[in-house]
Amino acid sequence: MALRGPALRLLRALLGHTCQQSRSQSVAVLGAPFSRGQKRRGVEHGPKVIRDAGLIDRLSGLDYSVHDFGDLNFHYPEKDEPYMDVKSPRTVGGANKKLSTAVSRAVGAGHTLVMLGGDHSLGLGSAAGHAQQCPDLCLIWVDAHPDLNTPLTSPSGNLHGQPVAFMLKELQNKVPDLPGFSWAKPFLSCRDLVYIGLRDVDPGEYQIMKDLGIQYFTMRDIDRLGIQRVMEVTLDHLMARKQRPIHLSFDIDAFDPLLAPATGTPVNGGLTYREGMYLTEEIHNTGLLSVMDLVEVNPVLGASDEAVQATASLAVDVIASSLGQTREGAHPILFYLSVKCNNVHPVLVYMGMNLNPF
Amino acid sequence: MALRGPALRLLRALLGHTCQQSRSQSVAVLGAPFSRGQKRRGVEHGPKVIRDAGLIDRLSGLDYSVHDFGDLNFHYPEKDEPYMDVKSPRTVGGANKKLSTAVSRAVGAGHTLVMLGGDHSLGLGSAAGHAQQCPDLCLIWVDAHPDLNTPLTSPSGNLHGQPVAFMLKELQNKVPDLPGFSWAKPFLSCRDLVYIGLRDVDPGEYQIMKDLGIQYFTMRDIDRLGIQRVMEVTLDHLMARKQRPIHLSFDIDAFDPLLAPATGTPVNGGLTYREGMYLTEEIHNTGLLSVMDLVEVNPVLGASDEAVQATASLAVDVIASSLGQTREGAHPILFYLSVKCNNVHPVLVYMGMNLNPF
Amino acid sequence: MALRGPALRLLRALLGHTCQQSRSQSVAVLGAPFSRGQKRRGVEHGPKVIRDAGLIDRLSGLDYSVHDFGDLNFHYPEKDEPYMDVKSPRTVGGANKKLSTAVSRAVGAGHTLVMLGGDHSLGLGSAAGHAQQCPDLCLIWVDAHPDLNTPLTSPSGNLHGQPVAFMLKELQNKVPDLPGFSWAKPFLSCRDLVYIGLRDVDPGEYQIMKDLGIQYFTMRDIDRLGIQRVMEVTLDHLMARKQRPIHLSFDIDAFDPLLAPATGTPVNGGLTYREGMYLTEEIHNTGLLSVMDLVEVNPVLGASDEAVQATASLAVDVIASSLGQTREGAHPILFYLSVKCNNVHPVLVYMGMNLNPF
Repeated sequence: MALRGPALRLLRALLGHTCQQSRSQSVAVLGAPFSRGQKRRGVEHGPKVIRDAGLIDRLSGLDYSVHDFGDLNFHYPEKDEPYMDVKSPRTVGGANKKLSTAVSRAVGAGHTLVMLGGDHSLGLGSAAGHAQQCPDLCLIWVDAHPDLNTPLTSPSGNLHGQPVAFMLKELQNKVPDLPGFSWAKPFLSCRDLVYIGLRDVDPGEYQIMKDLGIQYFTMRDIDRLGIQRVMEVTLDHLMARKQRPIHLSFDIDAFDPLLAPATGTPVNGGLTYREGMYLTEEIHNTGLLSVMDLVEVNPVLGASDEAVQATASLAVDVIASSLGQTREGAHPILFYLSVKCNNVHPVLVYMGMNLNPF
Repeated sequence: MALRGPALRLLRALLGHTCQQSRSQSVAVLGAPFSRGQKRRGVEHGPKVIRDAGLIDRLSGLDYSVHDFGDLNFHYPEKDEPYMDVKSPRTVGGANKKLSTAVSRAVGAGHTLVMLGGDHSLGLGSAAGHAQQCPDLCLIWVDAHPDLNTPLTSPSGNLHGQPVAFMLKELQNKVPDLPGFSWAKPFLSCRDLVYIGLRDVDPGEYQIMKDLGIQYFTMRDIDRLGIQRVMEVTLDHLMARKQRPIHLSFDIDAFDPLLAPATGTPVNGGLTYREGMYLTEEIHNTGLLSVMDLVEVNPVLGASDEAVQATASLAVDVIASSLGQTREGAHPILFYLSVKCNNVHPVLVYMGMNLNPF
Repeated sequence: MALRGPALRLLRALLGHTCQQSRSQSVAVLGAPFSRGQKRRGVEHGPKVIRDAGLIDRLSGLDYSVHDFGDLNFHYPEKDEPYMDVKSPRTVGGANKKLSTAVSRAVGAGHTLVMLGGDHSLGLGSAAGHAQQCPDLCLIWVDAHPDLNTPLTSPSGNLHGQPVAFMLKELQNKVPDLPGFSWAKPFLSCRDLVYIGLRDVDPGEYQIMKDLGIQYFTMRDIDRLGIQRVMEVTLDHLMARKQRPIHLSFDIDAFDPLLAPATGTPVNGGLTYREGMYLTEEIHNTGLLSVMDLVEVNPVLGASDEAVQATASLAVDVIASSLGQTREGAHPILFYLSVKCNNVHPVLVYMGMNLNPF
């Protein structure tokens, strides 16, 4: 048996390699109750409903030491006129700057970080903070939308449709200087980004993806290849030259609206529950997940309490699966067993309880 | 990049080949509010709810010139006694004759035609009219049912379960002369027909399919092969000897009843939304779609307004996807770009706006 | 055309081979209204709602001679203290003993048996009774849970999570003697068992599966391999050394909770309707199905009448598909035709009506 997720993760921690080295067994949760990257209020309550759906207990059950850092307090400037057609630039820029600092600090302190949004404009601050600690990170953006418009191509002017444009070095000269964004320097090469789940792509976004040769998988590609092959190609693409920390930015609207109704920009024909679990299991199994965002859960937009609960509960499942919950059961004892077989350092037995029924 | 749907379509138009030559960029919509091919009233309101769900705007957004020809007015004979067990033969025959003439005229005038039913007995008139202009057409029948009973094998006597039997040359001597059907001469060889989505097949239908060697894919076949392979085999089968115009006859009950509840004969275990999109994307990508039917949306049978809206909206998605809406976005500019690369005639740039963000 | 399900089954009957020899065309239905293997009352009404959903008519429509043996009457001891943490051992043991006798008798009398639960603790009695007649049976356990805890590993003490542990010869010395279970001797080798649909596995269960090398397919495996490949491997694994009678024990919670909401321990991310149909079609096509259980339909737990009806109707579909209902239609005439082609004994024509439309 090849070493898989938990073993790999722990070995890395023991060996002191890579950016993940010491935080493998410690997960930090950070709420970012922010909604000004788009026009529908309510998404600022995302962190609360995801926590209420049992996130902390679920992660604790996976044998992590879980640190809930609570929610960030964002500053709202009194005046924030649009710049060109872009709405609330100072507010969004400032919130992302603050988030960036907090993420950088948590990653630097050795935690695997879970960022709870809020709208997806926060993807910028989260990945930027992550990159401060781990400049070689790669980005997996799971979403119905590429969020790749520049201020010049955006049809809506909403910044939650633009965060990736601010990250990419290749777009450096195509993105105007927005008030509130002077801190945000591009940090990601387009070859270190993969999109999964796209099905609503604006013309400018499409052209950028094509011109830059960004690797992306629409729902049609998933239909064509299957989620298994999509994940193989994704990880091969990102890890081809070397193993690197993963930033997973997961928009709940990647799922089908039947599964995740309480969100702002639902699009039919999304991921199934099982595809979402498979995708996140594969990411966990790399042992390389370093930061993940879970964004765009908006409890105000659910048609019923059940719709909101289903969406929040799905968010918890996605996070837990990204962090090691499996459909075979998450059983620390097994690592003990496989380790014994392989004569690895005996300190590893402390990972699990001994449940041997014999 | 190989030339795909829109490029192929336009090139055909410019080159003046095949039956589609000049109507590539013009779509006509024709309503057929007719329900006498079966016993549940309400399906005559199909054209209205599909239009109300935004069909015309969606097609216009795909850069077609859209012509809404409104609804046909059908004549209802005062007396229409059953013939053998077949109900309303004169009414159904007359309506299909009228539809046939209208379809033939629209196709002859250079439009790609979208026919909105109405019940699926209308498939006969639509395909017959199409065949008047394009005698070499092939037929893709997407449906939970093969609609292949003859008046002799039909368990119900409803003509919406029989239209294909009237089309097939191989059944010429097996189908009795019904009053109202003297105009309807068989025009299709069984090798030019493929079924997709079957899961409720009557004994006589099954025997005809087997005896004639008709190519069909049940839901079990889709489970076994995947929709991607099913579409490959379908198109290889139909285009093996030559490229030919496609008649797509899409019964909304091909979809799972959870997606399309407002229909008369729902059967569990149908197509997913994504399979429906994939199927129609593949048909569009041939550049050969000439006429499509979208039938059996029955707003009276929805358990709620939401159920009706979902069904009608799904119908719009199916039509739009058949006509070029993609999950990567439908971006005319890209044709401009690919054309530039390939040094094709510059008039083609008029297909799209220039949205170049650089 | 290779001989498939019905032909194979009938040939076996005529040739007098194997345990199925004479009961191919006779199906017995036996209700087991029992709920003491777990704590939620209501599952004892499973047999009634499944019958009310039309089971007997559906099976009769498949040209079986159907014998409804009604429901078993179970004895409830006045005192049944827990043993260790195991709840109601005497009640569950006694009910399973009674069921075991009834199943053995029905199988011995030549019927293919359908057992309607009740909770899944009944799987023990049903398979044990089956094994009395067919000691070489194999077991396909379709379930979200492996139900493989021993009294020592069970987190809940509920016996519906333990029946398989009592069957396996390899666990003989690991399972304590429970009051009420002295009749139950292990009869199954772990290599003759396959699990399908797992997604909620307790630590002890996981360790047993791994230690014994049991063949299992979680939902992740189905995502990875597809249901087609899963069924191929399942049947290859079980029939590798010889053809043997199949015991299919189907827990309705194998399906996704959206399809089967009225059940006691639902887990997200289950089988689709089509996967359930494919799975059971493949089992039918072996011609080897001898006994099937359909358990854990609990009408008290449905949130609405519709939820209960959907679950019961799904149970009927699963049973009918296991017994030969197909998505091409279930057409006895076709056997007649294929038999004619193959010059097999003409008595076989009595299987079907002649519906030849020509």
